[in-house]
Amino acid sequence: MPSKSPKSGPLKNRNIKLVLQYDGTGFHGFQRQPSRPTVQAALEEALQKLTGSAVKIGAASGRTDAGVHASSQVVHFKTQSLLTPWEIRKALNAILPPSVAVREALDVPDEFHSRFHTKEKTYEYLIWNHEARSPFYAQRAWHVRDRLNLSKMRKAAKILTGKHDFRSFCTTDPDRRGNNAVRTIKKFEVKREGDVVRIRVTADGFLYRMVRNLTGALVEIGRGRLDFNELPGILKARDRRSVGQGAPAQGLYLVDVTY
Amino acid sequence: MPSKSPKSGPLKNRNIKLVLQYDGTGFHGFQRQPSRPTVQAALEEALQKLTGSAVKIGAASGRTDAGVHASSQVVHFKTQSLLTPWEIRKALNAILPPSVAVREALDVPDEFHSRFHTKEKTYEYLIWNHEARSPFYAQRAWHVRDRLNLSKMRKAAKILTGKHDFRSFCTTDPDRRGNNAVRTIKKFEVKREGDVVRIRVTADGFLYRMVRNLTGALVEIGRGRLDFNELPGILKARDRRSVGQGAPAQGLYLVDVTY
Repeated sequence: MPSKSPKSGPLKNRNIKLVLQYDGTGFHGFQRQPSRPTVQAALEEALQKLTGSAVKIGAASGRTDAGVHASSQVVHFKTQSLLTPWEIRKALNAILPPSVAVREALDVPDEFHSRFHTKEKTYEYLIWNHEARSPFYAQRAWHVRDRLNLSKMRKAAKILTGKHDFRSFCTTDPDRRGNNAVRTIKKFEVKREGDVVRIRVTADGFLYRMVRNLTGALVEIGRGRLDFNELPGILKARDRRSVGQGAPAQGLYLVDVTY
Repeated sequence: MPSKSPKSGPLKNRNIKLVLQYDGTGFHGFQRQPSRPTVQAALEEALQKLTGSAVKIGAASGRTDAGVHASSQVVHFKTQSLLTPWEIRKALNAILPPSVAVREALDVPDEFHSRFHTKEKTYEYLIWNHEARSPFYAQRAWHVRDRLNLSKMRKAAKILTGKHDFRSFCTTDPDRRGNNAVRTIKKFEVKREGDVVRIRVTADGFLYRMVRNLTGALVEIGRGRLDFNELPGILKARDRRSVGQGAPAQGLYLVDVTY
C-alpha cells in the first residue's frame, strides 16, 4: 500500500495528550453515552473531521457527571496525523462547539494514559452565597441563600484532610461503589471571594460523588445544621446515610491533574 | 372610587430603587426597543405581573448596549404596591428570566432618579488573554490571543486618568455624540488574574462607547501596536479616527454606581 503521507516513509504512530476545558451545562457528562450529547462524543467527532479517520479517546483523567465542568480535563488519543500539536489545538478549537475548548495539545510517550497514571487531582466547588440569585452563576455554582460560616467549614475541612476511609461520602449506587474507599486528601481549602465561596480539594483519588458529598456536609456545617465535631463519627460509620444530601452538579469543576 | 388596598386609607405613592444584575448576551441592551428583547422590557413585564398594573422604569443609571452585562445597574420605578422591598426582590427573582436578577430593592425618597443623580460610575472590561479560547468566557470577555504587556497598559491608563476632553474616544454617531466631551477619570486600573486581564475604570460620567474605545486603545498598546506616548496627541486631536477599533460588547460590565 502506498503511504498517503506527503512526506516519504511510513506514518508514525503518535500519542497525543489534550487538556480540555468545558462548560458541562449542555452535556450528559464526559463519557460517551448512546444518543445523548457528551464531551467525549463532541471531541471524537471533531477529531474525525480533523484527521479523516475514526479516533477513540482514552478514559479521561477524572469523572465529570452531567452538568459538571472542567478547566483542566486530560485525555489522550492515538493518531498517525502529521499535524503539529499547535495545529491540532487550533483546528480543534475551530471545529468544537463554544462550550468545549482545547487548552493544550502535546505529543507524549506511547505509554502515557490519561486515567491510569494520575497522581493527584484537584476539584473546585463554587457556591453563590447571596440571598438573591446571580445571572452569572446560574449554571456555574450552587445557590446557597444562608450566609455560610467559613471558619466552621475550614475546621471541617481540616478534620477531613489526610488519609481516611471515605465510604460515608461515596455514592450508595452498588455499581459505582468500588471496594477500597481509603483516599488521602492532601489539601482542602475554603475561601470567600465576595459573594462566592470557593472550595478546593486535592487528593490522590476520589470516590464517585465524593466532592459533591463532602461539599454537602461542609455547607450543612457552614449553615449551622451540623457540627464539625460529628465528622470523626461520620467517617467511622462508613455509611452514606450518616450525612445529608450531596451538592448539585453545576458548582463542580475539575481544575487540575498531575501525573 | 373605593381604594383596593386591604388596609384602610389611600394608597401611598412609593419610589423603589432596584439594583440589577444581568447577563446581556440575549438582550439588545437595557433600553426598551420595539419588538426586540431588552432588559427593560423583561423587568417591566415582571413588574406588571407582580403589581397588576403597568409600571414604567425610569432611565437606568448607565447605558448598556446589546451584549453588555451589569453586576450593578440601578433603576427606579413608582408604585402603590404594598409589598415590602424584600418581597419585591424575592418575587421579581422568581418571575424574571435566569439572565436577570434583582440584587437589592429599597424605598427611596420620591425625588431619587437613577440616571440624573449619579456621581460616579465604574465599568469593568474583561479580556480572556490566552492563545486558546475559553468556554467560560465565550460571551463574557474579549478573546485576545497576543500576550498583553500590562506595564505598558498601566502607563496608558495613568496618562488617561484625570480631567480630559475624551472626544477621540467617543462614538462618531452624530445622534450620540453630545456637546461636551470633558470627563474626569478618577481611577483606572489594569490587573492580571491568571489568564484574565481586568480593566476597571471609574469616572464622573462616560461618553457613548467610551469604555470600549479606551479598552481598544489599551489593548493596541498592550500588543505593542501603539505607543502610550502617543496618547496625549490622540486626546488633543479630538478625533475618533486617531485611535483604532473599540473593544467588543461582550467583555463590558457596569459594576458600580454611586449617588
